[in-house]
Amino acid sequence: MSNTMRASYLLKQGEVAVKEISIPELAADEVLVKVAAVGVCGSDVHYYQHGKIGPYIVEQPLILGHELSGTITAVGSAVDASRVGQRVAVEPQRPCRDCEQCNAGRYNLCPNIEFYATPPIDGAFAEFVKIQSDFAFEIPDHVSFEAAALVEPLSVCIWAARRAEITTGSRVLIAGAGPIGVIMAQVASAFGASEVIITDIAEDRRDFALKHGATRAMDPRTENVEGLAVNAFVDASGVAQAVYSGIKAVGPAGHVLLVGLGTEDMNLPVSHIQNNEIWVTGVFRYANTWPTGIELVASGKVNLDVLVTHKFGLDDVESALNAGKQPGSMKVIVNPGS
Amino acid sequence: MSNTMRASYLLKQGEVAVKEISIPELAADEVLVKVAAVGVCGSDVHYYQHGKIGPYIVEQPLILGHELSGTITAVGSAVDASRVGQRVAVEPQRPCRDCEQCNAGRYNLCPNIEFYATPPIDGAFAEFVKIQSDFAFEIPDHVSFEAAALVEPLSVCIWAARRAEITTGSRVLIAGAGPIGVIMAQVASAFGASEVIITDIAEDRRDFALKHGATRAMDPRTENVEGLAVNAFVDASGVAQAVYSGIKAVGPAGHVLLVGLGTEDMNLPVSHIQNNEIWVTGVFRYANTWPTGIELVASGKVNLDVLVTHKFGLDDVESALNAGKQPGSMKVIVNPGS
Amino acid sequence: MSNTMRASYLLKQGEVAVKEISIPELAADEVLVKVAAVGVCGSDVHYYQHGKIGPYIVEQPLILGHELSGTITAVGSAVDASRVGQRVAVEPQRPCRDCEQCNAGRYNLCPNIEFYATPPIDGAFAEFVKIQSDFAFEIPDHVSFEAAALVEPLSVCIWAARRAEITTGSRVLIAGAGPIGVIMAQVASAFGASEVIITDIAEDRRDFALKHGATRAMDPRTENVEGLAVNAFVDASGVAQAVYSGIKAVGPAGHVLLVGLGTEDMNLPVSHIQNNEIWVTGVFRYANTWPTGIELVASGKVNLDVLVTHKFGLDDVESALNAGKQPGSMKVIVNPGS
Amino acid sequence: MSNTMRASYLLKQGEVAVKEISIPELAADEVLVKVAAVGVCGSDVHYYQHGKIGPYIVEQPLILGHELSGTITAVGSAVDASRVGQRVAVEPQRPCRDCEQCNAGRYNLCPNIEFYATPPIDGAFAEFVKIQSDFAFEIPDHVSFEAAALVEPLSVCIWAARRAEITTGSRVLIAGAGPIGVIMAQVASAFGASEVIITDIAEDRRDFALKHGATRAMDPRTENVEGLAVNAFVDASGVAQAVYSGIKAVGPAGHVLLVGLGTEDMNLPVSHIQNNEIWVTGVFRYANTWPTGIELVASGKVNLDVLVTHKFGLDDVESALNAGKQPGSMKVIVNPGS
Repeated sequence: MSNTMRASYLLKQGEVAVKEISIPELAADEVLVKVAAVGVCGSDVHYYQHGKIGPYIVEQPLILGHELSGTITAVGSAVDASRVGQRVAVEPQRPCRDCEQCNAGRYNLCPNIEFYATPPIDGAFAEFVKIQSDFAFEIPDHVSFEAAALVEPLSVCIWAARRAEITTGSRVLIAGAGPIGVIMAQVASAFGASEVIITDIAEDRRDFALKHGATRAMDPRTENVEGLAVNAFVDASGVAQAVYSGIKAVGPAGHVLLVGLGTEDMNLPVSHIQNNEIWVTGVFRYANTWPTGIELVASGKVNLDVLVTHKFGLDDVESALNAGKQPGSMKVIVNPGS
Repeated sequence: MSNTMRASYLLKQGEVAVKEISIPELAADEVLVKVAAVGVCGSDVHYYQHGKIGPYIVEQPLILGHELSGTITAVGSAVDASRVGQRVAVEPQRPCRDCEQCNAGRYNLCPNIEFYATPPIDGAFAEFVKIQSDFAFEIPDHVSFEAAALVEPLSVCIWAARRAEITTGSRVLIAGAGPIGVIMAQVASAFGASEVIITDIAEDRRDFALKHGATRAMDPRTENVEGLAVNAFVDASGVAQAVYSGIKAVGPAGHVLLVGLGTEDMNLPVSHIQNNEIWVTGVFRYANTWPTGIELVASGKVNLDVLVTHKFGLDDVESALNAGKQPGSMKVIVNPGS
Repeated sequence: MSNTMRASYLLKQGEVAVKEISIPELAADEVLVKVAAVGVCGSDVHYYQHGKIGPYIVEQPLILGHELSGTITAVGSAVDASRVGQRVAVEPQRPCRDCEQCNAGRYNLCPNIEFYATPPIDGAFAEFVKIQSDFAFEIPDHVSFEAAALVEPLSVCIWAARRAEITTGSRVLIAGAGPIGVIMAQVASAFGASEVIITDIAEDRRDFALKHGATRAMDPRTENVEGLAVNAFVDASGVAQAVYSGIKAVGPAGHVLLVGLGTEDMNLPVSHIQNNEIWVTGVFRYANTWPTGIELVASGKVNLDVLVTHKFGLDDVESALNAGKQPGSMKVIVNPGS
Repeated sequence: MSNTMRASYLLKQGEVAVKEISIPELAADEVLVKVAAVGVCGSDVHYYQHGKIGPYIVEQPLILGHELSGTITAVGSAVDASRVGQRVAVEPQRPCRDCEQCNAGRYNLCPNIEFYATPPIDGAFAEFVKIQSDFAFEIPDHVSFEAAALVEPLSVCIWAARRAEITTGSRVLIAGAGPIGVIMAQVASAFGASEVIITDIAEDRRDFALKHGATRAMDPRTENVEGLAVNAFVDASGVAQAVYSGIKAVGPAGHVLLVGLGTEDMNLPVSHIQNNEIWVTGVFRYANTWPTGIELVASGKVNLDVLVTHKFGLDDVESALNAGKQPGSMKVIVNPGS
């Protein structure tokens, strides 16, 4: 086997190019994964368009992509060699595992965490990646690589559902029927929600959501969600007005999960939060979600394949990063090996 | 015994007068309490000054006062007669006890609740009040009536401490060193907090708080709380800037409890909440707190008597409502029977 | 309307007779329910066969039956008259609503509770019963009265599932494939369990469970459950050996829910509980479960109609109490109005 | 510095000898601790007396001791060199940090854990030990090495208190007034318990407990705890009868924590557990407790120094292991450096 591989780099804002680089060397507890599918996330597009996200600035060439699956082709010295050949979904983060947050099981809040495709940590638009062995999760044969890659955004939604305490009989409101909103609708349903209301200004997105998890769709420009008294509101829009209205839609002792990224500060209905003792929080990635995610996909309770609208090869990453602008686009996949 | 009593009414905004009225008649499950002490709350003062609080408008004469203690002098037909003579602290609310919130133990969120001194429900600036028997809690002999009355604001703080999950070793920030802030400092300490930081612009209030529960006091005009990474922030100020800074002072997985009443909407640091998965919520009164409150007072872990700076009789309620303006004023008491 | 009704009494151990008695008079907050269907519970059979259950002794004629549905035909003075005509499932208990347990939302643990068909409180083998209005829950038209009656045992299972923290991806073991075991299997599945293993010595019961909720069935005489390392074990057998083995089947930080009634004391594997920090508890009826139960039935996530194997009229209650001995018997219903 | 050190070995059941061995070599994330104080635990004595504990058999010479403190004298390559010289309390376990339990924050349940003084892992009756750097916790100057060593049994009690949800106003029963029982009494008090009842058959132990944390002491031979209706029962005796009675002393929705090691199986009052929905569980060591433990000791809320009744040098470990038999013995310390 050659010891080089091809990888697609964001050289700087708006410039993408494939380069030939060394295949990563493995530490004892790591595995090498031949990447099969990588989902394009809004954050990848944002780095491409703006060269930064908040304090994270692309100052040197960076490999994007953090939603991924593939096949283990090599293992570190401390890893069971029988894992070679396993098809896996990858949890794309490397917590330090010995800080207060890690020891408490909140490794997503580890201050030392390294996360794929976040400067200066490289991501997965490449033929190979390395990851600690316990963060490469075996998938059943009948789960596609595309679905396995999308266990990453699914994990965001599982984490939100857990924090929102969505359970049998919950009534849930979701703002935004993009990929996260639609996956969230499916997750809410899988967690037992009896009513899953989604809002979006785009009719085609509302229709899509109704086919895949939502029980009701509303146009926020013409319909008012305030007073729905739902048990949980999950914002997947990042839009200030949607967040404000959504919180007002929450009933006594309900939960608000802010998943979408919007402005740094927002005007929130504090009296409503106080008078109803609502819990407002956000998600910062996820912890301990991959087994649940794979189970949801494998059992068919969540269908991620229906989200995939475009696929590109490694040489067409720039097209992949621009594909989201096309009408009807939902989820774009890069297949580095194709 | 005469069947009339004297009560102090807020006739309308800014007008107070004592009237002779009938002693309340008891339902089967109620007790009659001869009122011994009533704390003056900021809400009482607000009704007096403005004639309303938000949607609650004083449209007919109203008896103010909802922090109270006294002695049971009569009981309804279903109540054990041996309770006559008991000294009690009163939980001044009447939930419906058969709605979803009540059945779930969140009776403070009961949509049908009747709360003392909230239009049109009368309060406790009167010689007698009635209350359901299980909301009149016996107090030990060595607990003063004044302290027993203040179990009401103490309950707000206990409820906040429980919701904030304050426990052994917690680091807690409190904004505002008025009565609620100082009681909150004592409660945080009683719940095991190892560090209790309080902020106030008034030096005398900071000094008072340091004597009674706080381990550190800061002037928010000259010292920055952001980055303290506390486990819990309790706002007892209602000031937008204090809330904003306080949230930024909270570390990963911490809690924010908005206790102070400020504006209906507020600008909050949403990114900080998301990135640290902070839980933001408020308290709406309390549920199931009086036994704990009485225990904290009886055991000396919380000292409420030190807060009392003024006392007035029933004829001087207007003076009591104005006493908060005096320098050094902390907690004002009305003794209806004196 | 006549003011009398027919009711089937357990006169004493082994003796059942129908008597003509007065229709219950309603308190202000109560409704009168014309009973449509009543499930026969093992406890009813036990009272019939033994005249007592533990400390509860049938010392005077008692109406059995506590799993019921029907139609509201009259309402107390404080209840909305529009409820007359509603088809309802009944939660057959009357908590005091003003003790420490009730106020905390644990009204099932209320020391003053009155429960149907528990001496000396009469049950539902009668043409009419009364119940507090908030414990008569409206059911959709497409839910049968039989299924609505069985929301009672369903509630036991919902309560067990909540306490066992069964959620998406849970692996659950159930001992005993009688009515409670089979309903529990369906509930576990509805709560998201990915694996639902049930044990029973009877092959037909194992087969039935596999058709209705279980993913795997085991014969405890030939297969060993120890070491399965499930997340939750629910005992629905009351058999000491099943409880012991079931606990040993639970993995780290798992839950054990003892639902079946067995002997007062049992020999439990304490070291296994300690070494794995397993939580062991029981259910005592339920609290706040009917809305969830009705939703599970109405949505089709749980199918209770498949459990019904026998139906009898009010004159045949004794046959109903004996029907459980027939081969293939699962759930027996009494229809008082037929 | 010499690269050898002295260590006291349990050669086999009943035989102890000091040997000269190599000082441990450090991995990158480890620190070397010069041991100052080691508490003698019941498990050390048990290994000495019986050569095994359950499945753990001393098949080769083993260094005992797992309650320890000392001073960092060297650090691995990845550890901040400024830690050299720090006085530390040591958490004596090494979880794998990449299994399901570790990732979930329950690293005490890690199936791959290595624990000091558990065959074949050596303990701390030695001049030096190594430990991963995040499990060596700095202690303030005013905390003695003896108290710092006893943060280990304190951690057991903190973990029990957390799991038992002991909080302000809790009523707690403890069985057994040995070292764990007395520390548990102090911890219960520090967590806010208003009543701390302890039982022991030895009068001097009851008296000692009353001086150091307990509010009431009972002789189980003459006084009955059943019916106390406490919120939490912690067994620190391992005696079957004490466990049985203690569970019967727990009220509705209370917690039972089995800390003491007794027989593998025990006869428990299952009906009482069911009827009161009591939670029964055990502790298996602890997780994330040292910072809280050090805070409790540093603040004076818990006093561990009062427990120390005997001290021995490294050459007298056998005497230390036998000192528990002496009247009045509570906690025995080995000082390897003295």
